[in-house]
Amino acid sequence: MNKKIKVNVVKNVLQANDLVAGRNRQVFKENKVFALNLISSPGSGKTTLLEKTIPALKPEHKSIVIVGDLQTTRDADRLSDQAQQAVQINTGMSCHLYANQIAQSLSDIDLKGADFVFIENVGNMVCPGEFDLGENAKVILLSVPEGDDKVAKYPTIFRVADLILLTKVDLLGALDFDLKRVKEDLSKLNAKATLIELSSKTGQGMDQWLDWLKAKRTEGIGRQARFATE
Amino acid sequence: MNKKIKVNVVKNVLQANDLVAGRNRQVFKENKVFALNLISSPGSGKTTLLEKTIPALKPEHKSIVIVGDLQTTRDADRLSDQAQQAVQINTGMSCHLYANQIAQSLSDIDLKGADFVFIENVGNMVCPGEFDLGENAKVILLSVPEGDDKVAKYPTIFRVADLILLTKVDLLGALDFDLKRVKEDLSKLNAKATLIELSSKTGQGMDQWLDWLKAKRTEGIGRQARFATE
Repeated sequence: MNKKIKVNVVKNVLQANDLVAGRNRQVFKENKVFALNLISSPGSGKTTLLEKTIPALKPEHKSIVIVGDLQTTRDADRLSDQAQQAVQINTGMSCHLYANQIAQSLSDIDLKGADFVFIENVGNMVCPGEFDLGENAKVILLSVPEGDDKVAKYPTIFRVADLILLTKVDLLGALDFDLKRVKEDLSKLNAKATLIELSSKTGQGMDQWLDWLKAKRTEGIGRQARFATE
Repeated sequence: MNKKIKVNVVKNVLQANDLVAGRNRQVFKENKVFALNLISSPGSGKTTLLEKTIPALKPEHKSIVIVGDLQTTRDADRLSDQAQQAVQINTGMSCHLYANQIAQSLSDIDLKGADFVFIENVGNMVCPGEFDLGENAKVILLSVPEGDDKVAKYPTIFRVADLILLTKVDLLGALDFDLKRVKEDLSKLNAKATLIELSSKTGQGMDQWLDWLKAKRTEGIGRQARFATE
């Protein structure tokens, strides 16, 4: 009985969230920015990746960062030098961002001149997958030290991914990790998502990731422009 | 507004959960078993630790395992040979176990002759800390590859810990990890929790962990016996 109440409530919260997410998507579209929702376990390297990505996109592309965290402003602090603007959302007890927290942040952000909005979600492999923030793409990071069974064990999140970044691949030799297993599990769940093997430490895969970002942005903006004239 | 609704609901769910958790605690007490709630990020080594711990406690101590997972039965499969009984709870879309799921499992478990109940929670550093399952102790695993900023970033979970296991310490040399920072952050949040540096791979820290388990169980059972005569 208790469980049933929970399910109903979650459904209401999700519906309300989707409504706000749709409005966020409209704001991104009007401003011709490409918004990404970065999701992973704690410590898989989201912030480090952005520390490398945002400068590498310059000067051609400007980026805005919205970071969700339980309490600290550490990640936003780390990114504020490189980003055009870095906004911190403290979620308190919540293990994921809500669309309305992004909506509130957007009212403080000047999107003019920006090309990318990177939303770094709270470190969690489950709930962030259920809460649409209005992003144009969901990027899931899986780090090698987490183990090769994670795709099968956390399928909900990998099912909705547009891109999977396998991070810390510089540790592939040092750890027992079956890359083939990951690829097989992924092909069953989500055949259309791209997998990029990446190391923020050695730089492996960075070019592929940057190319993906630019291509998807162009594609997304193109689609938005088409929508606008329909 | 949306956010406020969520908060009220969560409070109701938590209150209902605490009620059931209290009943679980009573069941553990009546059966003189020591129950532990193991919490961590995905891939920090909960199952591997239990694969080593349960045989090491034999033949003196028998263990039961309850594993929470979104979908698969992989972890319970891995543990079913060694444990007296291994129960899998599939949580579906939920990122943590509820007390009523444990209560349901307990109706299928024969606790007679058991000394420890290890509850392996869903891989998540946030929500499992809020949902009491009726356990006697909360054990938080933090693995070295997750990084040395995790105590400060996920304080809610470390604040309620009885024991923190720093796992995969065999990687301390290979990765940039400031152990002193972890200890300092912990001392500010939770001075009474014990920290054990552990490697399931090399065996480092295993004796200390086994001693802690046995001592806490003896202490817990003693306290339970006192409670029973009060």
